[in-house]
Amino acid sequence: MSRQKPVVVVVDPKTPGNIGTIARAMKNFGLSELKLVNPPELHRDDDAYGFAGHAREDILPNAETVAFDDIVENYHTVATTAITNEDSRRHVRYPFKTPVELRESLKTTETRTALVFGREGTGLDNDELAKMDEICSIPASDDYPVLNLGQAATVLMYELRELTVEETQLPDVEQSRAPESDVERFYDLFSEQLDATGYDEHKRGKTTRLMRRLVGRAHPTDREISTLLGLFRRTNRQLRHRRQLLEKYDEPDRWR
Amino acid sequence: MSRQKPVVVVVDPKTPGNIGTIARAMKNFGLSELKLVNPPELHRDDDAYGFAGHAREDILPNAETVAFDDIVENYHTVATTAITNEDSRRHVRYPFKTPVELRESLKTTETRTALVFGREGTGLDNDELAKMDEICSIPASDDYPVLNLGQAATVLMYELRELTVEETQLPDVEQSRAPESDVERFYDLFSEQLDATGYDEHKRGKTTRLMRRLVGRAHPTDREISTLLGLFRRTNRQLRHRRQLLEKYDEPDRWR
Repeated sequence: MSRQKPVVVVVDPKTPGNIGTIARAMKNFGLSELKLVNPPELHRDDDAYGFAGHAREDILPNAETVAFDDIVENYHTVATTAITNEDSRRHVRYPFKTPVELRESLKTTETRTALVFGREGTGLDNDELAKMDEICSIPASDDYPVLNLGQAATVLMYELRELTVEETQLPDVEQSRAPESDVERFYDLFSEQLDATGYDEHKRGKTTRLMRRLVGRAHPTDREISTLLGLFRRTNRQLRHRRQLLEKYDEPDRWR
Repeated sequence: MSRQKPVVVVVDPKTPGNIGTIARAMKNFGLSELKLVNPPELHRDDDAYGFAGHAREDILPNAETVAFDDIVENYHTVATTAITNEDSRRHVRYPFKTPVELRESLKTTETRTALVFGREGTGLDNDELAKMDEICSIPASDDYPVLNLGQAATVLMYELRELTVEETQLPDVEQSRAPESDVERFYDLFSEQLDATGYDEHKRGKTTRLMRRLVGRAHPTDREISTLLGLFRRTNRQLRHRRQLLEKYDEPDRWR
């Protein structure tokens, strides 16, 4: 993470709202340097600030207006484009990397990278693309692969987050499985329940295994398992009590 | 791909623009069924249609207004939330899956899934979350993990594209490497060039290997290699010709 984080460059954006959306995504995914080539004027009360979320405090007001050729000169430039060429006969948009491939290649490279996004509607033109060092394209539906500028930038920054986000909001472990002994105790209780209800003896093993597979696949948490243990203990106590009552009162067991 | 594609549900959205953004992302990533709980009125001239791109033709006008409980009743529901609980002591937002984990688990499951997004700002409330079957959370910067509604939906649908997009716009092979024999011929030419320039004999092997590693890592396309072959052949011819001239004219070789 000591690596320099990519800067984000938007070339000739027309809509303040898209600039705001990109600034917000930058803040969501740990980026901070926004550079604009030929931007519209931005005002505190327009969509740029309206869409920027907390990025209105820092990234957006600190955005720098730059010249396209200065970016080409000073950065390893990655252009984004929805449409690529099919093969190397036309190489303005070929070869390309997907966002995942770009992330993997940047992981092991010490470089100052600029993620360059083009204008709404038409993107970067061929002259601009020809000056870029790499092409990145987001896989999308062949029917309609053209993402909105802000959405494309969001997806790309999301994919690069491993390079840019020190710490996410999520706990390190997405799920901690209940202690195995507790889970086993649950299977025991389930088996006891089958027994207590007079379940067909030949089928008990198979049915317990089914429950084992079902719960096992779900990676139960300790809370889930302790809840189930409590419920099943209570159930089994009541089932056993019913049997005692049957015996005590010499009642026929009509519900086997 | 015969599996049923998820439907997208937006609960209590306030801003028509976000509905448009979500509709566009759905079309970008191969989804089609949009369901809205308590939506604002949508008009052809508002931001919903303005932001929807080509989804203004089908997904948006076909969006259905539904009741939250009907979704709970009829679908395997996946709630999205930026903030999760840390562990199982509070289980309204725990355990959760990341978008990648959700994709992997849905891959092997035949089910009718609803991706449920909450209102702007506050998301789904705890009562709503309690009725959801699973929680999905997008990893983002701990400083500011709250994505805009449209951006969150875009990222999630992007990650699920393997389940929903039959064919992307990208060629199947991102890059086809030049035939190995051509690449080898290029290394031969490079070595010949070292020779023709009178490069230190002891260093030729090492320098050729350096070029081999450099070009090899880049996976050159056939176009790149055939271009280089042409260039190097021409260069070597001219270098050899210079030597002939030196001999012919008994010139000292001052540029070794």
